[in-house]
Amino acid sequence: MNAEFSIDRLYRAVAEKGNVCVGLDTLPEYVPEQSLRRIGGTGAVLQYNEAVVDATFDVCACYKIQIACYEAQGLAGLDVYSKTLGYIKKRGGISIADIKRSDIADTAAQYAKAHFSGDFEADIVTLNPYMGMDSIEPWLCESRKKKKGAFVLLRTSNKGYRDFEGQRTETGRYLYELVGDRLLEVISNETTNSPYGIFGLVVGAESKTGYEREQARVIRKKYGSLFFLIPGYGTQGGGAEEAALLLNSDKNGGVVNASRSILKSWCLSDDPKNAVIETAAESARNAVIAMRDAIFSAPTPVF
Amino acid sequence: MNAEFSIDRLYRAVAEKGNVCVGLDTLPEYVPEQSLRRIGGTGAVLQYNEAVVDATFDVCACYKIQIACYEAQGLAGLDVYSKTLGYIKKRGGISIADIKRSDIADTAAQYAKAHFSGDFEADIVTLNPYMGMDSIEPWLCESRKKKKGAFVLLRTSNKGYRDFEGQRTETGRYLYELVGDRLLEVISNETTNSPYGIFGLVVGAESKTGYEREQARVIRKKYGSLFFLIPGYGTQGGGAEEAALLLNSDKNGGVVNASRSILKSWCLSDDPKNAVIETAAESARNAVIAMRDAIFSAPTPVF
Repeated sequence: MNAEFSIDRLYRAVAEKGNVCVGLDTLPEYVPEQSLRRIGGTGAVLQYNEAVVDATFDVCACYKIQIACYEAQGLAGLDVYSKTLGYIKKRGGISIADIKRSDIADTAAQYAKAHFSGDFEADIVTLNPYMGMDSIEPWLCESRKKKKGAFVLLRTSNKGYRDFEGQRTETGRYLYELVGDRLLEVISNETTNSPYGIFGLVVGAESKTGYEREQARVIRKKYGSLFFLIPGYGTQGGGAEEAALLLNSDKNGGVVNASRSILKSWCLSDDPKNAVIETAAESARNAVIAMRDAIFSAPTPVF
Repeated sequence: MNAEFSIDRLYRAVAEKGNVCVGLDTLPEYVPEQSLRRIGGTGAVLQYNEAVVDATFDVCACYKIQIACYEAQGLAGLDVYSKTLGYIKKRGGISIADIKRSDIADTAAQYAKAHFSGDFEADIVTLNPYMGMDSIEPWLCESRKKKKGAFVLLRTSNKGYRDFEGQRTETGRYLYELVGDRLLEVISNETTNSPYGIFGLVVGAESKTGYEREQARVIRKKYGSLFFLIPGYGTQGGGAEEAALLLNSDKNGGVVNASRSILKSWCLSDDPKNAVIETAAESARNAVIAMRDAIFSAPTPVF
């Protein structure tokens, strides 16, 4: 077991290696065709994941694995999911299982068992808070015991966030603020080695309008003591500037996820038809370095 | 492929066999000890699931399988999950995969592929709406193509529902009403064979206070054209009376789920130490019949 909480480890990783979270949302068609044909379906996905981990290990903070991409391939897909998590662990990396699970009491405890031990053990998970804090608390108990962590969905990067997350409640606060405020309450008594709590928040980077940029500033200021997982970079439309709005002034306090723009960067190479796993992993590395540096150069909010 | 939408099939099943949804949230410790020792872990769970399906097939409407209980056992557990779904399908039954998944766009489409085809194919799924309607719509597309269905979380049966689901928004409506209203909008153009839409709602039965009972009546009236999945019966504290409040006056329009109170009813038999899978399945059948009849005798709301 690790001696420190997963989000403390993430804090150190960001300080050492920058803010990039490499998203291993690896569909078979993201693997260069030559390699995919030679190795075949799920085996090719596993080899590509391992090659990307090897090629990016010293230039990214962590890996986020989107379980849906593996569930879609059934039992064979989940075997690759399990082995990918195992490979990251073996290398001493930090894994975020993007599972967005939600359930209550005993069922939440079953999910925590599933994703904090055994075949699907990860360091950190993502959780959906809709059902209430009693759907979050079982994960908190298990995280304390096993030094794990979770990012709770706050304001996501899709347009539909306005439907429910972004609704104003009768208290005047947005629904997502109720989520953040309740999370702060329940973790405020925890002592950690970093400036951040043992659980953090998912906050999308896609702040296109002035209004949304202002929201992003407010969120960063209000939840300064919570670590953010920031999706929506690259293919989803957010840039380094939007993402950096959600970091603290020391450029820590958040990891920025990109998936397709890293995994498929080989498609933009001079000769994509001749790409193989090894050259694609090298493209991924270059994409991560470019992203890391772009975030590092972008201004962070000043309060 | 089935010729009619899954919720239309459910409507017919309720008319023929009553409102009980048997929850196969089967943990190894729910299997009688003798059988568990003889067969061992996940194999015993599969045999017990099949025996319960056989014993209850003519007295219940459908089966709900809580995936968390299987994910907790890793790949071997998900193999049993897959085989349980396959067994229900082979018998011509209706399966509800209680997965409460939530994600957007491409990722939602991956989840829909995972749970509407292949190893984990079910007839109906449960979904969490927090991220917005663009997290629901990909499931709707797939459901139209494959005659599947989904129940979207509205107001759940846990205490924590008050934290977010039960918050009043600045429009005066509860958050859960925004969810229900938006769902009605997106499915209102679908034509079905029953009085119900192709997607329904999850509404918890645990209405203990007068205020919550009134809320239940309002929910049933407002969403009269949506089919309900009603959890919270039995071990979770709701009774036949609370559940029936959420049915329409013809006793259709909803299925009531119970899991532990059915799967573990053998523990209350005269001689639980000598129970085996066969006798436990018979106890499960008796528990389902008692529950079906109690719901049938309970008053439904009059508008």
